Amino acid sequence: MKKILVLGAGRSSGSLITHLLTVSEKYGWHVTVADADLALAKTKVGNNPHGTAQAFDLQHTELVIQLIQANDLVVSLLPASLHQTVATYCLAFKKHLFTASYVSAEMKALHAEVKQKGLLFLNECGLDPGIDHMTAMELLDDIRKQGGEIQSFESFTGGLLAPESDMENPWRYKFTWNPRNVVMAGQGTAKYLEDGTIRYVPYQQLFRRTTSVSVPGIGLLDGYPNRDSLQYLSVYGLESIKTMIRGTLRFKGYCQAWYILSQLGVCDETHDIELENKTHEEFMQAFLPAGHGSAEDKLGKLFPDYRSSISLLKWSGFFDSEKFTLSKATPAKAVEVILSRKWTLTPNDKDLIVMWHRIGYTLHGHYKHVQAALTATGINSDKTAMADTVGLPLALATELFLLNKFTDKGVVIPIKSNIYQPVLAGLKERGITMQLIT
Amino acid sequence: MKKILVLGAGRSSGSLITHLLTVSEKYGWHVTVADADLALAKTKVGNNPHGTAQAFDLQHTELVIQLIQANDLVVSLLPASLHQTVATYCLAFKKHLFTASYVSAEMKALHAEVKQKGLLFLNECGLDPGIDHMTAMELLDDIRKQGGEIQSFESFTGGLLAPESDMENPWRYKFTWNPRNVVMAGQGTAKYLEDGTIRYVPYQQLFRRTTSVSVPGIGLLDGYPNRDSLQYLSVYGLESIKTMIRGTLRFKGYCQAWYILSQLGVCDETHDIELENKTHEEFMQAFLPAGHGSAEDKLGKLFPDYRSSISLLKWSGFFDSEKFTLSKATPAKAVEVILSRKWTLTPNDKDLIVMWHRIGYTLHGHYKHVQAALTATGINSDKTAMADTVGLPLALATELFLLNKFTDKGVVIPIKSNIYQPVLAGLKERGITMQLIT
Repeated sequence: MKKILVLGAGRSSGSLITHLLTVSEKYGWHVTVADADLALAKTKVGNNPHGTAQAFDLQHTELVIQLIQANDLVVSLLPASLHQTVATYCLAFKKHLFTASYVSAEMKALHAEVKQKGLLFLNECGLDPGIDHMTAMELLDDIRKQGGEIQSFESFTGGLLAPESDMENPWRYKFTWNPRNVVMAGQGTAKYLEDGTIRYVPYQQLFRRTTSVSVPGIGLLDGYPNRDSLQYLSVYGLESIKTMIRGTLRFKGYCQAWYILSQLGVCDETHDIELENKTHEEFMQAFLPAGHGSAEDKLGKLFPDYRSSISLLKWSGFFDSEKFTLSKATPAKAVEVILSRKWTLTPNDKDLIVMWHRIGYTLHGHYKHVQAALTATGINSDKTAMADTVGLPLALATELFLLNKFTDKGVVIPIKSNIYQPVLAGLKERGITMQLIT
Repeated sequence: MKKILVLGAGRSSGSLITHLLTVSEKYGWHVTVADADLALAKTKVGNNPHGTAQAFDLQHTELVIQLIQANDLVVSLLPASLHQTVATYCLAFKKHLFTASYVSAEMKALHAEVKQKGLLFLNECGLDPGIDHMTAMELLDDIRKQGGEIQSFESFTGGLLAPESDMENPWRYKFTWNPRNVVMAGQGTAKYLEDGTIRYVPYQQLFRRTTSVSVPGIGLLDGYPNRDSLQYLSVYGLESIKTMIRGTLRFKGYCQAWYILSQLGVCDETHDIELENKTHEEFMQAFLPAGHGSAEDKLGKLFPDYRSSISLLKWSGFFDSEKFTLSKATPAKAVEVILSRKWTLTPNDKDLIVMWHRIGYTLHGHYKHVQAALTATGINSDKTAMADTVGLPLALATELFLLNKFTDKGVVIPIKSNIYQPVLAGLKERGITMQLIT
């Protein structure tokens, strides 16, 4: 009997846990769902006899060891910063580890040891990173098989709000994954390759240096580059191409409004700020010049070309006289608190996942390109497209691996056909599939 | 016989070493000047029999121990990041340590141990921090003695280029201290108190959120806030005031041009960039959107209100077809290389130090304020006002301490009258003094 330990029962876990419970019934496996919030874990497991809910605390070493020892494979949905601790235990007790997170330098360094112990640490197997890698490699491998030579690769993904939900929301956005990560998005310097030149975009320019992406049935979206696209040149085998960019999609308006927040420096975790008895307006004033005038008026003067963007901040309550209930927090946390009021999914809200690839190549001396898009709409706040697209690739990969459908070892991401083909086939059965744009 | 070890014989060391050699002749002391560049140390010592030049490498533990053991007091002009290593040796061998650098949290943590061992680690005893603390405390103590109650404190300092030097230089600036620190200036979030509200200014807004400062004989300057002014509320005993700001002065035009650099993200040390066979123009293009057009034209489009500032970048050669001789460096280093071509003092250039304080207070129910300024002009590129104002306070404090004129112990900065009075008196004898603005 295969035993699977799922760490984390939060936002993106629903579809993953449901699938693993279903296959456990089929194959006689068992799933233990562990979360700091036992009640949440219990909700996810329900009365399924093939599942157990478990209270969890990564600091509680004995418990962690006991849980990891008792299972064959660990799926970690914990914050990425905690994966390394989990990986250390998995190595010590020879257990496989699956995550949807980027491979950190520390994780990568474990490759030889993981492989030597006959284990698989499969990472970047969610939506983005995850489905983007798999669908991209499928397209790239297909072009290469035809004899095409890749010239450019562009790939953008966004977790958005479906057009029919909360129609008054001018951001067309709500939190469907970790709100902290949304608030901290883009910090650092993005790097990508465009027309043969490596381009650097610092945080302060990121949200004004957007590119337009047109997706059939969705319309025009804004894309901004993610982190370091250059490292995927070698991962995808595209060392000689001229353009390589991976990025994030948002509906029009979002990036311009976020540009203002990025310029003000409010999405900062490096210091605390006193919030006791402070209003949202007073919080904003602390990041603006002194003198008379409301925060809204001051922003209008500082950013005269961004009046319509300021209205998005107003809609979100950044200028409200509502007081914080926190006494002290980082500015980033205060921004999260403000945004949470209107960016929390109501029960019937539907989210929308959009992924878009464009690949340029030459074939028999002719320049061609292929565009493809994947869209997925959620059912409600509980059954989100985000939970499906992050959780199902991970769940399908777990099922396939435990059935010995692939046998890769080491620290791996899903870019080889023996993994991506069956996972993409499983996603297609569930309606999640990339469509060529013709 | 007192023995003094000076670590570092670079830009700001001339006046310090000259003064210490002079007093060594007078009192029969000895000064050892240690630098990675032995020739440089030799130049500074000359033929003075009371001085020795010494090759130095902080990695060479045996040598460091031998040098520190052989002396009574260490003056460190090394980069601030190295002071902690020096402090560790000074503690181990019970030697006093004097620096012109900000007290780091690690240095502060040594206070009890330093005191218990009967040692003095005197920091922030240069220009800024240094003379600013001493002159400010003199003014503040004087107001308090009169019975005044301080309401506001503003203090700005700048190391500039004298009006008569390099008159074509539109920045009115050249490197007179560590160029790296000039390029990296302002990164992080500045914090200050204004009209009773704590204000936060991130790097990306710092150079556009300037304040005008008028100094008699100099004219209007731009000031921008330094780091964390709030920590000096308690240091200066000003916990109940409404405005507290410490900042940096630049001539008009500098900050607006630097705003463009700060927005582009070129002053970044967190990654390397390939410079082999690259021109300055190509370096700038890497931080700009793709497409046709020169870097200058693209900047004009991105920053339409900053056309005159772009001309400063042009003057500095940011758009030149000159190639880098470095093959790989951080963007910040590349900026330093470009600026060094025109920002290196020529032999007859004179630098200019400007310090300005404004203190508001109430006295017998009436609101009053006092303004004061200190200016100092260098003689040439070798005898700079920067070297005088950074080095002489440190040299005078060293002399006074070794003569037992003050006997403070622990990790200390010069804010008490027993230290600042004799040091300011010594500076006044050398023409460096604050003048009240009436």
